Amino acid sequence: MNPSASAPKNASPLAHPNRFHHVALIGKFQAADTLQDLHGLALFLSGQGLEVSIERETARNTGITDFASVDVDDIGKQCDLAVVVGGDGTMLGVGRRLAKYGVPMIGVNQGRVGFITDIALEDYREVLPPMLQGGYDQELRGMMQAQVWRDAECVFEASALNDVVVNRGSASGMIELRIEVNDHFVANQRADGLIIASPTGSTAYAMSAGGPIVHPSVAGWVVAPIAPHTLSNRPIVLPFECEVVVEIVRGLGATANFDMQSLTSLQKGDRIKVYAAEHGLRLLHPVGWSYFDTLRKKLHWNEGAA
Amino acid sequence: MNPSASAPKNASPLAHPNRFHHVALIGKFQAADTLQDLHGLALFLSGQGLEVSIERETARNTGITDFASVDVDDIGKQCDLAVVVGGDGTMLGVGRRLAKYGVPMIGVNQGRVGFITDIALEDYREVLPPMLQGGYDQELRGMMQAQVWRDAECVFEASALNDVVVNRGSASGMIELRIEVNDHFVANQRADGLIIASPTGSTAYAMSAGGPIVHPSVAGWVVAPIAPHTLSNRPIVLPFECEVVVEIVRGLGATANFDMQSLTSLQKGDRIKVYAAEHGLRLLHPVGWSYFDTLRKKLHWNEGAA
Amino acid sequence: MNPSASAPKNASPLAHPNRFHHVALIGKFQAADTLQDLHGLALFLSGQGLEVSIERETARNTGITDFASVDVDDIGKQCDLAVVVGGDGTMLGVGRRLAKYGVPMIGVNQGRVGFITDIALEDYREVLPPMLQGGYDQELRGMMQAQVWRDAECVFEASALNDVVVNRGSASGMIELRIEVNDHFVANQRADGLIIASPTGSTAYAMSAGGPIVHPSVAGWVVAPIAPHTLSNRPIVLPFECEVVVEIVRGLGATANFDMQSLTSLQKGDRIKVYAAEHGLRLLHPVGWSYFDTLRKKLHWNEGAA
Amino acid sequence: MNPSASAPKNASPLAHPNRFHHVALIGKFQAADTLQDLHGLALFLSGQGLEVSIERETARNTGITDFASVDVDDIGKQCDLAVVVGGDGTMLGVGRRLAKYGVPMIGVNQGRVGFITDIALEDYREVLPPMLQGGYDQELRGMMQAQVWRDAECVFEASALNDVVVNRGSASGMIELRIEVNDHFVANQRADGLIIASPTGSTAYAMSAGGPIVHPSVAGWVVAPIAPHTLSNRPIVLPFECEVVVEIVRGLGATANFDMQSLTSLQKGDRIKVYAAEHGLRLLHPVGWSYFDTLRKKLHWNEGAA
Repeated sequence: MNPSASAPKNASPLAHPNRFHHVALIGKFQAADTLQDLHGLALFLSGQGLEVSIERETARNTGITDFASVDVDDIGKQCDLAVVVGGDGTMLGVGRRLAKYGVPMIGVNQGRVGFITDIALEDYREVLPPMLQGGYDQELRGMMQAQVWRDAECVFEASALNDVVVNRGSASGMIELRIEVNDHFVANQRADGLIIASPTGSTAYAMSAGGPIVHPSVAGWVVAPIAPHTLSNRPIVLPFECEVVVEIVRGLGATANFDMQSLTSLQKGDRIKVYAAEHGLRLLHPVGWSYFDTLRKKLHWNEGAA
Repeated sequence: MNPSASAPKNASPLAHPNRFHHVALIGKFQAADTLQDLHGLALFLSGQGLEVSIERETARNTGITDFASVDVDDIGKQCDLAVVVGGDGTMLGVGRRLAKYGVPMIGVNQGRVGFITDIALEDYREVLPPMLQGGYDQELRGMMQAQVWRDAECVFEASALNDVVVNRGSASGMIELRIEVNDHFVANQRADGLIIASPTGSTAYAMSAGGPIVHPSVAGWVVAPIAPHTLSNRPIVLPFECEVVVEIVRGLGATANFDMQSLTSLQKGDRIKVYAAEHGLRLLHPVGWSYFDTLRKKLHWNEGAA
Repeated sequence: MNPSASAPKNASPLAHPNRFHHVALIGKFQAADTLQDLHGLALFLSGQGLEVSIERETARNTGITDFASVDVDDIGKQCDLAVVVGGDGTMLGVGRRLAKYGVPMIGVNQGRVGFITDIALEDYREVLPPMLQGGYDQELRGMMQAQVWRDAECVFEASALNDVVVNRGSASGMIELRIEVNDHFVANQRADGLIIASPTGSTAYAMSAGGPIVHPSVAGWVVAPIAPHTLSNRPIVLPFECEVVVEIVRGLGATANFDMQSLTSLQKGDRIKVYAAEHGLRLLHPVGWSYFDTLRKKLHWNEGAA
Repeated sequence: MNPSASAPKNASPLAHPNRFHHVALIGKFQAADTLQDLHGLALFLSGQGLEVSIERETARNTGITDFASVDVDDIGKQCDLAVVVGGDGTMLGVGRRLAKYGVPMIGVNQGRVGFITDIALEDYREVLPPMLQGGYDQELRGMMQAQVWRDAECVFEASALNDVVVNRGSASGMIELRIEVNDHFVANQRADGLIIASPTGSTAYAMSAGGPIVHPSVAGWVVAPIAPHTLSNRPIVLPFECEVVVEIVRGLGATANFDMQSLTSLQKGDRIKVYAAEHGLRLLHPVGWSYFDTLRKKLHWNEGAA
């Protein structure tokens, strides 16, 4: 009866392992300057007493050969930590594949610090050692599972850490969507599109469409239309534990996008089902990391007038 | 590791009692036409085999004497159901006092159906009987606890089901507030005011200030400024399990409002602490009740252009 | 020195002609039921003592042969009134072509009354006669001229009564646009697109993008981004007398749309110039017509909560 | 018939006088450090060959006695230029009083450059000389006249350069206002308040309430509600040449504010009339001054995410 008890479990840090033993290193592919950075990081981690493996594609692209190379699935099975070097997009891509193994991830950013890659490359020598000993703040980021149903058949399936977006085709004027939640009719929406975003995605495309910022510890999704054809719209935050179904009522050439991976040419009657994925992303941050600092730094959120 | 597990417990219905035995009836005070309605309802409930008591103030105001009268606290201790006749405001007022006893509530509306009083007076003869036998959908609505601290002293305390609002005084041009969440600095806000709203309150004042709609099953709060003095604002949804502290940095004559109960004349340096109350409100709805229907009906939400 | 003097001339009605003599009738093409309606209207206007001509395409499509048929350009030269039967889209299409001739237009709507086609088909027998005698309210609706420049060449030119829209292609994630006004740098905009709308267009796509409603008598344009990638955006209203230049900085497959007529495949470096067209649209309304009534009726603008 | 002709006259610079002869200096009262600055500026202007007078209050507050002191009305009659030292608020205060005399104004800002005080104190030695010779860009800023009518009597009258605001009292929950424009019913508005703002005021309180930015050359007003109790609201831009009437339908203790000068305790039935003032404010800027630069600098308008 006490609602306090119903708060997301991921709001409180999970039990910390004492320390990590086998770390996988994963880099942004095709980045010319990644070799130097990655190799330096690998040596550094090795020097910290960790067994270090390099993700196979990363190893091939950088030409690093003095560490063992492993598939992503092997990382999931063998490693107890993944360090990703790149931007938020790299992190999301790796995260979607590692989520089911529960391997915690640390993001190291080569450029400007991102929303989830919060350690700058030039800082890792100071920041990583205490984290490797178990001194970190852990977050669990919820992930969405999405399916596209045509008639009685599932024609596409994907998971998404940021958002599932249904968008009008470039030719058509707009689309009309019918939204249902847990079999309850919600709304018929005429708009340029519709975004269903996780808290992680609430600061991405959903923000552009006018959606609220949702703290990563909130167990909910934002549903926000893009350029809705009505004055009386307002984004809604739905609970994690629900199934959203979006049906294409009208809209030649509509597309569905899952973290920007596209399924083009949806058809009238297609139904996109979105629900909570079984596993989420485990992110490790330096102790004292603040989501609000990132909001202000990245978005100039609440930055006053001069 | 599975974020599904962290969804609010109130998203799934609690165990249903087989049926109810002792119901309390509570009416809007000062409503002239309430006597007839309440007495009819009392007889009806009695005819359904329930023991019926009338809340003491309600009994005094309506002059109903042929049923036992009880204090609100006695309702909490003795009754296993409370039926409230009135609007959403009446329901909130009673709910704040009954929450700690966990007595479930049914709202019967004399006028237009409300957000949480969803049974029309003329319909109760059809709608109530199955509910009294245990056929209902139950919701748990989170409630906020709020305190005002001046120096090292708590000078005011209240609970709120809708919202906690800090507002500028009528004289002063604006206020400046410093917001912290779990001791992390969030923002300095110059605005007309700030609203911290529960999902229940997200369709009230927070909606006017541009906040999102938050489904009652989401374990979170909306924080939305009123007329913020910056372009770069955006409402945020915070997890249930956090403590928000709002400090008055500037703003002669600012007020704090807890579900519209006011504490006037806040002073510079006053700190308003808001956190999840230990108990929430148990609301019973007819089976198949839909929050989305209410949104469309009450707010014309997503109603298309003609 | 008195800004009152600088108000738009179209805010006050132009001198009324005593009455009209030669009316052209124009219908929505391909509308199966238009024949009956148009022919009845033609007979009615003829019965009011007017010479009646039918626009050539309309005559061909409906098969009406007992009235003279004329080209749109001939309407401009010969007729002193055009009555358009159809929706707002039909009216806009005809209006763009008639604007340079200054022929006033009356819109008769076969379905729901529109924003600029404000006479219902079933009402014209009562509403038109006084208007034909000179009893009407006249409005002048500003029109935009737009050109697409590639290198030093104008590759496309069109006029628009609603809006000029630069949109991202369906493949690309977003576009980046550089906006200049009268050779002053305004902003670099990363977004799904950008809308430059007339007051007439302010209740169309620009409204969906969050733009303000602009009264038709205001001599200004709305510039509103679609899903901008920044929190600190806000639509702006620019004066009629300015030249807006939008340059494609990034955005493979971007399109430009002029009242929904598309130029696809813009290229990096393309510049879209938008400025006030030399001529506007003369709309005649029944005496006492109110723009605000239309807003409330069509958009449910300001419609209160239930 | 050409809407181009209807553009605001103030969009194009007025004829420039060859140069100025008699300048008045006006400072922010009570500013301790103003003496030094003002006296230096007075000497500088005198050195440029101008006759220099000091506004009487300014002279008294700063103790400057070696220049003639004049009343504001005398400035209007005798001087052909006013240089104001202070912030935007000082400029607005002086501007309201000088508007009817048509004396052009230059704003020198002691702190951060403002929206209309665009010359920094440390720069005036370089910036002013060419302006004094006639090299400037001139703008005309429209001003509102407002009256409060109770029964058949005008109980208050004021002019406003920024905005006219009707606000709820601090006690009452909200107010209900009936809005009419040129005797047409516009809307019944339940909200915290209503703002009618000039283009100058569009970047002040109206912006906080969600109104659009309106370029100073647009001959129009923004009407924007504060925290409206409906989803279907949207700010509207009305033409300069109209009369807006706001009637208090409900709202104990409502106030009317004219550029922040308050009339408290409005009563039910009170009518606030707002229309274009006969005179506007003549502002002189350095050649090449850009309104858009100011927007970006002051508001971080369109500032991208990091």
